[in-house]
Amino acid sequence: MIVRDRPNAIAILFAVRGSVVPEIVPHILGVALFSVAVTALSRYHLMEVSSLSVMPITLLGIVLSILLGFRNNAAYDRWWEARKLWGQMVYEIRSLARASGSLLGESDPVRRAILMRVLAFAHALKTQLRAEEERENLAYWVGAPALADARRKSNLAEAFIAQSGQLLGEQYRQGRLDSMGLKILDERLTALSSIQAGCERIASTPLPFAYTLLVHRTAYVYCYLLPFALIGGLGWAAPVLVAVVAYTFFGIDKLSEHLETPFGRDPNDLPLDALCRINEISVADALGEPAPKPLPVQDFQLQ
Amino acid sequence: MIVRDRPNAIAILFAVRGSVVPEIVPHILGVALFSVAVTALSRYHLMEVSSLSVMPITLLGIVLSILLGFRNNAAYDRWWEARKLWGQMVYEIRSLARASGSLLGESDPVRRAILMRVLAFAHALKTQLRAEEERENLAYWVGAPALADARRKSNLAEAFIAQSGQLLGEQYRQGRLDSMGLKILDERLTALSSIQAGCERIASTPLPFAYTLLVHRTAYVYCYLLPFALIGGLGWAAPVLVAVVAYTFFGIDKLSEHLETPFGRDPNDLPLDALCRINEISVADALGEPAPKPLPVQDFQLQ
Amino acid sequence: MIVRDRPNAIAILFAVRGSVVPEIVPHILGVALFSVAVTALSRYHLMEVSSLSVMPITLLGIVLSILLGFRNNAAYDRWWEARKLWGQMVYEIRSLARASGSLLGESDPVRRAILMRVLAFAHALKTQLRAEEERENLAYWVGAPALADARRKSNLAEAFIAQSGQLLGEQYRQGRLDSMGLKILDERLTALSSIQAGCERIASTPLPFAYTLLVHRTAYVYCYLLPFALIGGLGWAAPVLVAVVAYTFFGIDKLSEHLETPFGRDPNDLPLDALCRINEISVADALGEPAPKPLPVQDFQLQ
Amino acid sequence: MIVRDRPNAIAILFAVRGSVVPEIVPHILGVALFSVAVTALSRYHLMEVSSLSVMPITLLGIVLSILLGFRNNAAYDRWWEARKLWGQMVYEIRSLARASGSLLGESDPVRRAILMRVLAFAHALKTQLRAEEERENLAYWVGAPALADARRKSNLAEAFIAQSGQLLGEQYRQGRLDSMGLKILDERLTALSSIQAGCERIASTPLPFAYTLLVHRTAYVYCYLLPFALIGGLGWAAPVLVAVVAYTFFGIDKLSEHLETPFGRDPNDLPLDALCRINEISVADALGEPAPKPLPVQDFQLQ
Amino acid sequence: MIVRDRPNAIAILFAVRGSVVPEIVPHILGVALFSVAVTALSRYHLMEVSSLSVMPITLLGIVLSILLGFRNNAAYDRWWEARKLWGQMVYEIRSLARASGSLLGESDPVRRAILMRVLAFAHALKTQLRAEEERENLAYWVGAPALADARRKSNLAEAFIAQSGQLLGEQYRQGRLDSMGLKILDERLTALSSIQAGCERIASTPLPFAYTLLVHRTAYVYCYLLPFALIGGLGWAAPVLVAVVAYTFFGIDKLSEHLETPFGRDPNDLPLDALCRINEISVADALGEPAPKPLPVQDFQLQ
Repeated sequence: MIVRDRPNAIAILFAVRGSVVPEIVPHILGVALFSVAVTALSRYHLMEVSSLSVMPITLLGIVLSILLGFRNNAAYDRWWEARKLWGQMVYEIRSLARASGSLLGESDPVRRAILMRVLAFAHALKTQLRAEEERENLAYWVGAPALADARRKSNLAEAFIAQSGQLLGEQYRQGRLDSMGLKILDERLTALSSIQAGCERIASTPLPFAYTLLVHRTAYVYCYLLPFALIGGLGWAAPVLVAVVAYTFFGIDKLSEHLETPFGRDPNDLPLDALCRINEISVADALGEPAPKPLPVQDFQLQ
Repeated sequence: MIVRDRPNAIAILFAVRGSVVPEIVPHILGVALFSVAVTALSRYHLMEVSSLSVMPITLLGIVLSILLGFRNNAAYDRWWEARKLWGQMVYEIRSLARASGSLLGESDPVRRAILMRVLAFAHALKTQLRAEEERENLAYWVGAPALADARRKSNLAEAFIAQSGQLLGEQYRQGRLDSMGLKILDERLTALSSIQAGCERIASTPLPFAYTLLVHRTAYVYCYLLPFALIGGLGWAAPVLVAVVAYTFFGIDKLSEHLETPFGRDPNDLPLDALCRINEISVADALGEPAPKPLPVQDFQLQ
Repeated sequence: MIVRDRPNAIAILFAVRGSVVPEIVPHILGVALFSVAVTALSRYHLMEVSSLSVMPITLLGIVLSILLGFRNNAAYDRWWEARKLWGQMVYEIRSLARASGSLLGESDPVRRAILMRVLAFAHALKTQLRAEEERENLAYWVGAPALADARRKSNLAEAFIAQSGQLLGEQYRQGRLDSMGLKILDERLTALSSIQAGCERIASTPLPFAYTLLVHRTAYVYCYLLPFALIGGLGWAAPVLVAVVAYTFFGIDKLSEHLETPFGRDPNDLPLDALCRINEISVADALGEPAPKPLPVQDFQLQ
Repeated sequence: MIVRDRPNAIAILFAVRGSVVPEIVPHILGVALFSVAVTALSRYHLMEVSSLSVMPITLLGIVLSILLGFRNNAAYDRWWEARKLWGQMVYEIRSLARASGSLLGESDPVRRAILMRVLAFAHALKTQLRAEEERENLAYWVGAPALADARRKSNLAEAFIAQSGQLLGEQYRQGRLDSMGLKILDERLTALSSIQAGCERIASTPLPFAYTLLVHRTAYVYCYLLPFALIGGLGWAAPVLVAVVAYTFFGIDKLSEHLETPFGRDPNDLPLDALCRINEISVADALGEPAPKPLPVQDFQLQ
Repeated sequence: MIVRDRPNAIAILFAVRGSVVPEIVPHILGVALFSVAVTALSRYHLMEVSSLSVMPITLLGIVLSILLGFRNNAAYDRWWEARKLWGQMVYEIRSLARASGSLLGESDPVRRAILMRVLAFAHALKTQLRAEEERENLAYWVGAPALADARRKSNLAEAFIAQSGQLLGEQYRQGRLDSMGLKILDERLTALSSIQAGCERIASTPLPFAYTLLVHRTAYVYCYLLPFALIGGLGWAAPVLVAVVAYTFFGIDKLSEHLETPFGRDPNDLPLDALCRINEISVADALGEPAPKPLPVQDFQLQ
């Protein structure tokens, strides 16, 4: 995620970090060069280029705007829902820490074990969502045996929640928790499980592929038809205008593509590392242990 | 559901899998041929074809865009809600597995029986939503007697939830669960029941039929009026433009129709088989039994 | 509700069942005839008819599109919320049946009495929402004395929920339910009460009347101004175009009006009879009694 | 709230009750007169009036449409959320009546006292939201001492909820309610408290004032620029068209302003008196006392 | 937050308080001066300035409108969600006061201690969200030792919730609360924790920076291209029109920027001081202590 104060109006015109411009420059150049060629052919009468009527192009532009607008909305909603889920994780973990302190005692070792498993859950979920190799040393949180046990399951993040549930079940059977106490804590685990399922849903279910096809094709056809509609009145200004229009259309298209998959490491993706660190701080505070520092912003970006 | 990395810009222009193009090609051809005929009649003065003013066509295009945009939004919302419901099923089953382990014990046979009935519920619901013949061997999960018993009810999926409830009720009456423990587990069954009702609502309640009529008719009239508005200035480019416009309008129309009914086996429909498999894996992990593999993507598609 | 497979492209152009066309034909004809008159006066120079500039008409068309789009969205949201509420009723009743079986026993007469009152609630609510005479024989469900007792209250549907609550209260005071058991079942009644209040809200609170006025007036003024903007270039094609535009505008207007009040017996209204029947089937299955058949679709319509 | 059957198409064009026309007539007249003046100056060459190009006006119109559309959506959402909150109050009170009957007994005097305080809460909240003098005799519901006690608090409506909570607390300490019973009833009070806070949020937080400024100024500038764009082609028809456009823009603006503050006594505001009466009827039915009649619609309006 | 009655139509045109005009005046002036220069160059033939065709400018305007509309919606949703969270805080605190009175007794010192910590939580959260130095004397609420203890944690607001949880845990272990009583009160703390996490999410996660870049750049390019499209027909009126269009585009852009970060001290930001005071009043009323006055509106603004 890009974190910076809004630069002044001039600087913002030339900001590159977080912009989608670098990715779409080839496409803009392609359209502009094609437009130059069409203009040249028309100017020097090398070939008869008939000018298109403006109306169908305008209409196609309106339809395309509505398609891009819809896709952009849907992609942003996915991004924001993902952020909400990770924000919910923050308070579920804080509430689990608080309620387990009330029910089991502030310095109970089972309480600590559960909170550590929940941190391991957050890290494992982050890694799974990013489809990366595990970078964190999860044994640091839960110890090697619990990690080995969790690895035997199909879904590592889910396994840590299941282990927490087993620890709660033992307390319940030993009579240290009554069924209401179990419910209070189990509700938190259910919520964490719902967060995982929500994130997995977003990560595994892209927008229907037909949208991508429909939007992409219409945008291309539109941008390559545009020069024919402009050669009549604009002359050499046409390629500039075509490039500006292509910038907005390809820019929205590319941005939607980024936001649709909010869990990667693109500049506009969610800062899962920083959010995991917030959870570590909450748990350390709750356990009365020294808390780590929040992750710093590096080069305007939070991972 | 189509699962593939976004191909490069050229490949995407010619992708067919998951595209709605094959289905709407006849309609696009029809409009294009009509447009060729109108242009020919006008060019060779075989018949006097009066050119339409541009304004009412533009306006009709804007109204149609808004109608298509609305219908597309509504259809996508149904598709995404259906996906959310099946995503919720994933964590409800995981939470049921966890909480039943805490309350009844990890290796309790009743816990296993309930989880198996819940898997049968998922498979039966999938089959009912797709209006297919039962392909799965449900007796594999619940045994022949329970299946026979469930078949005597009107709604097979509902019957498995009811059986799970009866098992819980027996535990309660035997004193193995107190009323709070019953509530913890019954909440999960209620949630599964709400998922079923939500899916049945989406499957049985299409968008009001009058929308289909209104959108379809306006799109047809619009596309068949368009050539008259274009013959003045465009000549033989008119059929090409008409085909492009028809592609976007018929494409959105067809895509909305697909997403409106998200439970079928169309390329853009939801991968219910894969989601059922995820549930099987969760339950196998929770029971400490060997888990099956996730379903593979075949030819870019997940069933 | 209209239930039919999507007909082919030709048949759909002429479908009448479920269409709003019959209702708006007089208005379309009026506009078209007026347009014919204006064109005739202009053609034969019977009167000087000055041609309107296109711009303000286009703008008015855009404003009207946005107004119609907003109203259509709001009306559809009401319709879909109403459907969700009735879909929620389905699973609340199923869950009430399941939980009461667990807590009171599968064959407890009080359980049966409560479920019967809930069915009577569904039928009474349906009748109240449709503002119809009571067609169902509610005594069939609850017996004559309970019905007579409920009739003494101001709101029949509410009275059946209240009776169910009283039955639960008696079980609680007799010690057959503890307070947690009471809560489990009372939550279902609260949910049914919220469904009723939601439906009553939709039925008793139309969209602000000023919207109807604003939309209706603008649509009329627009359609009667349109001929003046078209007489310049179109000749006798003008009335046809005016009729097409009027069809889309009046069609959306009329459809919004239907969906705004989703509880009637219009073709696009909700099939409350069929939903009540689904509840009857669920309850019969839960009680182990013979279940009735689902309501059939008649002439493409489900009541 | 305006309650009337939709009149026929002609009558609707001239309906005044519930319309925003009377309020915006001066503004429409102002714009129309200005337009007459501009046309006259241009026609009789009293002054050189240069005609504006159509394009920037059209664009300004589109921007204005989007701004008005956004504001209209936001205002309607506030109005509908307010209606939902008052609809929720209906079922929370019904559920409180039902659950308190189960837990405390149907004819328990404490139950009656709590329900009376809840009715007083509804009336007090209504009065506070409307910022009116208290019209109802609240002592009728709760008796003079309780009213005097509540008046000593800063927020009268909140005080009645607090009193209900104190009554519940006494029952709990006397052992007439266990902690679960307390929770069942306290959840209802929490919900009523959330309804109050939601209504106070809507009443005290208008849309950001900058929107009002932006929309209002753009609408004015637009309508006063419009004549310059029209004088070229329209002649004396221009003032009529300007008036029609001004009617739609000022009409949406004024309607949004009304719906933004849904708790007053404007024709389109919510019928809080009628909703309070519904609550009185529910409570009377629950207590077995004679219920008052619903409030009648007077002159198409429900207060 | 700006709080004022809607001024009359004339006054509203010149209102400055709460308007974004002062901030965007330089940008509007820049565009207008550029437009004057282009017009002058064109008029006096100092340089050949080719006139742009209208179509691509119109299309760019439509795309820009949709982008600005989307960003405006997203920013407003953040602002309104933030307001909802602080409105929820009001009733959570009221409900905590009520339920703690029922469970612990109206005059219990632990109840008072918890409510004071919750007030300190509200003030600390406000300060953190505004990224300001602590202005309030938090020791006034919780006493110096508790404040010093909370300061040792990483997150001050969270620490006060944790302290409240510890107080509840002590009551539970001492048997003054059973597990259900603990749950009733802990649910309120969980809700406060979710409010904090929600506010922190909004404060720490701006809209993706790429939107700001895309919108800002398109708006600038658009406004600086506009004069070229207007010089043909408008003459010296062009700069005026350009300034009006720039006012609407830059105005929406700036307003979105303000609403995106709703926790500052801009005129349109949320009145957190006033909301904290409302909480203080609720707590004082609940404790039977003298309540402070609501914060007054100063110069039309509530902080």
